[in-house]
Amino acid sequence: MIAECQALLGPDAVLTEPEDLIPYSFDGTAALKCRPRLVVFPRSTEQVAAVLRLARDHGLAVVTRGSGTGLSGGSVPVPQCVVLCLQRMNRILELDERNLTLLAESGVLTQEIFDRADAAGLFYPPDPGSIKISTIGGNVAENSGGLRGLKYGVTRDYVIGLEVVLADGSICWLGNKCVKDVAGYSLRDLFVGSEGTLGVITQVLLKLVPKPAARQTLLATYGQLEAAAETVSAVIAARIIPCTLEFLDRQTVRCVEAYAAVGFPLEAEAVLLIETDGHPAAAAEEAERIEEIARTHGALAVRRARDPAEAARLATGRRSAFSALARIRPTTILEDVTVPRSELAAMIRLIQRVARESGLQIATFGHFGDGNLHPTFLTDERDAAEMARVEGAMRTIFDEAIRLGGTITGEHGVGLAKKAYLRAQLGDASFALLKSIKRSLDPENRLNPGKIFD
Amino acid sequence: MIAECQALLGPDAVLTEPEDLIPYSFDGTAALKCRPRLVVFPRSTEQVAAVLRLARDHGLAVVTRGSGTGLSGGSVPVPQCVVLCLQRMNRILELDERNLTLLAESGVLTQEIFDRADAAGLFYPPDPGSIKISTIGGNVAENSGGLRGLKYGVTRDYVIGLEVVLADGSICWLGNKCVKDVAGYSLRDLFVGSEGTLGVITQVLLKLVPKPAARQTLLATYGQLEAAAETVSAVIAARIIPCTLEFLDRQTVRCVEAYAAVGFPLEAEAVLLIETDGHPAAAAEEAERIEEIARTHGALAVRRARDPAEAARLATGRRSAFSALARIRPTTILEDVTVPRSELAAMIRLIQRVARESGLQIATFGHFGDGNLHPTFLTDERDAAEMARVEGAMRTIFDEAIRLGGTITGEHGVGLAKKAYLRAQLGDASFALLKSIKRSLDPENRLNPGKIFD
Repeated sequence: MIAECQALLGPDAVLTEPEDLIPYSFDGTAALKCRPRLVVFPRSTEQVAAVLRLARDHGLAVVTRGSGTGLSGGSVPVPQCVVLCLQRMNRILELDERNLTLLAESGVLTQEIFDRADAAGLFYPPDPGSIKISTIGGNVAENSGGLRGLKYGVTRDYVIGLEVVLADGSICWLGNKCVKDVAGYSLRDLFVGSEGTLGVITQVLLKLVPKPAARQTLLATYGQLEAAAETVSAVIAARIIPCTLEFLDRQTVRCVEAYAAVGFPLEAEAVLLIETDGHPAAAAEEAERIEEIARTHGALAVRRARDPAEAARLATGRRSAFSALARIRPTTILEDVTVPRSELAAMIRLIQRVARESGLQIATFGHFGDGNLHPTFLTDERDAAEMARVEGAMRTIFDEAIRLGGTITGEHGVGLAKKAYLRAQLGDASFALLKSIKRSLDPENRLNPGKIFD
Repeated sequence: MIAECQALLGPDAVLTEPEDLIPYSFDGTAALKCRPRLVVFPRSTEQVAAVLRLARDHGLAVVTRGSGTGLSGGSVPVPQCVVLCLQRMNRILELDERNLTLLAESGVLTQEIFDRADAAGLFYPPDPGSIKISTIGGNVAENSGGLRGLKYGVTRDYVIGLEVVLADGSICWLGNKCVKDVAGYSLRDLFVGSEGTLGVITQVLLKLVPKPAARQTLLATYGQLEAAAETVSAVIAARIIPCTLEFLDRQTVRCVEAYAAVGFPLEAEAVLLIETDGHPAAAAEEAERIEEIARTHGALAVRRARDPAEAARLATGRRSAFSALARIRPTTILEDVTVPRSELAAMIRLIQRVARESGLQIATFGHFGDGNLHPTFLTDERDAAEMARVEGAMRTIFDEAIRLGGTITGEHGVGLAKKAYLRAQLGDASFALLKSIKRSLDPENRLNPGKIFD
């Protein structure tokens, strides 16, 4: 296999030495690690197809990988597998200004796509926390979310076409530049969020939208968590859908300030970071109404960013939450339970209770507008007893999310990290359906085996 | 089977007499007809599941049906089948104002859903031409489009959860009220647009959005079709996404005026009906800019609706296009090819050339903003020679749509009407994938067999 890959891709596109394999042995879920047999770097769809055929001939599993920033172990290798790293397929192939579409190879960084659209007066809204370093192919495979889900949706909502290579090496184009297309099942939607288990995504055709003309940023500070949750409900009840509606708890705020000093108020029990966008009159009016609603719902203070620089500083504060928290203890486990927005307060109360009862450090931040919370465990993987408590705490949190009509993962994927909980969420019939789809598309279980389910 | 269904559902919920079966023997695609063995009217998901189990035990095919307004033969019975008519499952189960969702049984009319949302200050944007008489279950099964696709998307974009009954009678809930959920493949998206071939959709959970505060309507008249197409390109190039961007050709305009007298200009070669919506300042400003763009791109006249009544009259004109055209000849065949927006002018030129060369009457209208055209054949199904020319003309139009990167069906579905063309659009690998999904979910080919593909 190694010699054949070298002949096919060139010797500089194949890694086999143990020390070279280490960086490809884990992803953002640092606690999960496994060394692959080899790592290959194809430069074209045809090369990907050829590698898949070789892997089939040699009976090897294939794990596809972009930048490896995933947070559920989706791109962690399985023993003796081939890692198919798409980072060298990194060209933006077309920006079509007439149809408002962008065609990119899977290895392009998502930030580059945002920037290219932005330069043309267009907007690619999905905005995962990893946007600067994650690839668009990885975003599509995980159906990444981000900070603008409430108003703009997630990655899926912008994928209108995909090129995929199937387990047998055949190449399919799914979708096209049409705004409407109902010719056959939406296979494209099946591959979005399939975590590398159904095929290898090699090209992505994205929908762009006009860039919003204006933006307003607010920071609301609360002495009580409940008041922040009530503000969110009241904003939605007022029929306002902000672009961003982020939440940080006391511990996260303090860590962020210590790390980035963006000006978050240290006395806060909770902070909401809210952005409105669109027509200047609409963005301004919405911001004003939100400010009023926040004040009548118990905000201690509401601050409006005076200029884009201040807005950017506040956004940076929110974006650095994970990095800031990661400095506190040796191991940081970022969860992403999601509940219907109306159940946010109940979910947060449970997380606080779990932290209190288990004695664990759990900081929480997240996308309040989406009901998407990131309870973040600050722990130490070397302490087996503490890790057992983490495991128990997680199960309690996931069970409650399911009970509240939510999901065990809003934007990180199932991967390895959550497969023990998936069946409980989906129920037996849906879970069986998932597996039958997998068997139908990858009958030899060669693509990212053991992810999502066993 | 008949006796068992009567025992299960009650005698008033089973039709078997030939004269009773006639209304359930066809759909909106009038040329396609087939009498079923029986028609049943379940009132609950459990009854649907029981009927599916009975059908399996008796080896009968099942064709699900709402109002039967489909335009591709999707709900036309197959010989000796059971028609599962969901019209009596017609309750709106919940409007959740905190999470902006609506839960309905499949048989609810889409207009009722729109109205219920509207009364709560909310908006259900999908707007198929049949909205007053089609059911939400049918809309989801066909992934219906409509007049607001450009800005608001299609039915799929508002489906966040589904209850489906599989071929073996098992019941699955797919999705939930969360804004974000990446737990497993998006099976929900697989069922949206599956045309009754993968399972029976019994409940639909829909996302609602705040109702736009204002709306502006414009009517632009053109002496040349090209000028209308150029206006559309220029509007998009100006980074404006109107809510509606409809087109009617000369023949359609004249038929509509004779039928509904809404005030369309009879001298026009083409008419664009454009709506903007949103914040009052945004809607007004966009309408102004569009008016300017239309004038500089050769519009003979641009009229702004002075009040909602005039706007409604113009919208009614557009909505009555099909009915107005249907009066001209005995048989009316409404097609729905779709191309990338940039290829609209090329597609329309081809349709005109085909009409000229074949001597057929083809009127064209449609959703210009979506690249979604309805070339409408005014013909007579009793004239075999003319029907052969219609068939040839269609094939030419579909081939060109595929060549231009478009689709044979933008919003009507494949059903029976277009299955001969599907493989050419998808290519062999994708087509094989569709069939493998079908085999996996319905191994005995019991659900709507022979639709989409053989």
